[in-house]
Amino acid sequence: MTIEQTIERWHRYVRGEPGGDIDALLADDVVFYSPIVYTPQRGKDITRLYLAAALHVLSGDDDRPFRYSKQVVAGDTAVLEFETNLDGTYVNGVDIIRCDDAGRIVEFRVMVRPLQAVNAVHQRMKAMLDAAQQA
Amino acid sequence: MTIEQTIERWHRYVRGEPGGDIDALLADDVVFYSPIVYTPQRGKDITRLYLAAALHVLSGDDDRPFRYSKQVVAGDTAVLEFETNLDGTYVNGVDIIRCDDAGRIVEFRVMVRPLQAVNAVHQRMKAMLDAAQQA
Repeated sequence: MTIEQTIERWHRYVRGEPGGDIDALLADDVVFYSPIVYTPQRGKDITRLYLAAALHVLSGDDDRPFRYSKQVVAGDTAVLEFETNLDGTYVNGVDIIRCDDAGRIVEFRVMVRPLQAVNAVHQRMKAMLDAAQQA
Repeated sequence: MTIEQTIERWHRYVRGEPGGDIDALLADDVVFYSPIVYTPQRGKDITRLYLAAALHVLSGDDDRPFRYSKQVVAGDTAVLEFETNLDGTYVNGVDIIRCDDAGRIVEFRVMVRPLQAVNAVHQRMKAMLDAAQQA
């Protein structure tokens, strides 16, 4: 699997289309770097959880649905810039995705801007975590 | 000037070496997107000011000097990921640089992670702005 094929399947996963099986895209030892938290999240299970939560939180609304605005792929790394809305706040962000020789994702790094977007993502993640702990 | 040449000269500018004339690298109508502020900063003068301030703030220290950790270049866009230290806080960030056909930078976008880094950059920028207004 080339990195181009991996990214094409990632887009299918994001759009909820067939052929976007996230388990086949992630390496077992993938590491997720959150836009909020310093500590890297290691392993397929926790990364899958974070990615699903992020896609849910960042899905946008009718006025501004989640969309990728740039795609830069070279060597083992793909960079996807995105725009979306979170509770009325404009969010501009980037996915930095590094793959191994087999095209599996070994590193997934997310950053967002501006400050208001960082705070909105932080609050929403905290609310989800609190709800999960009370369940 | 190809985008590869532009990025090579950008690295020289960052290192303070000859051949990194920032004025020759920026298009007149370049737009700077701050990691903190929503409003795009338009034009060569304000962008040069922001870039110089950012390099000063993010220069790091002996333990962790500013360094680029990834470089992805394809088409008209270059993505440079960096790591540095700001007042003891680890900063991981990205420069997203888009060029016109002549290789001049028309868009310069910066994002940082994690939350503590965003707050540290915000505080330092605010302090610089307050000092400038009192001068």
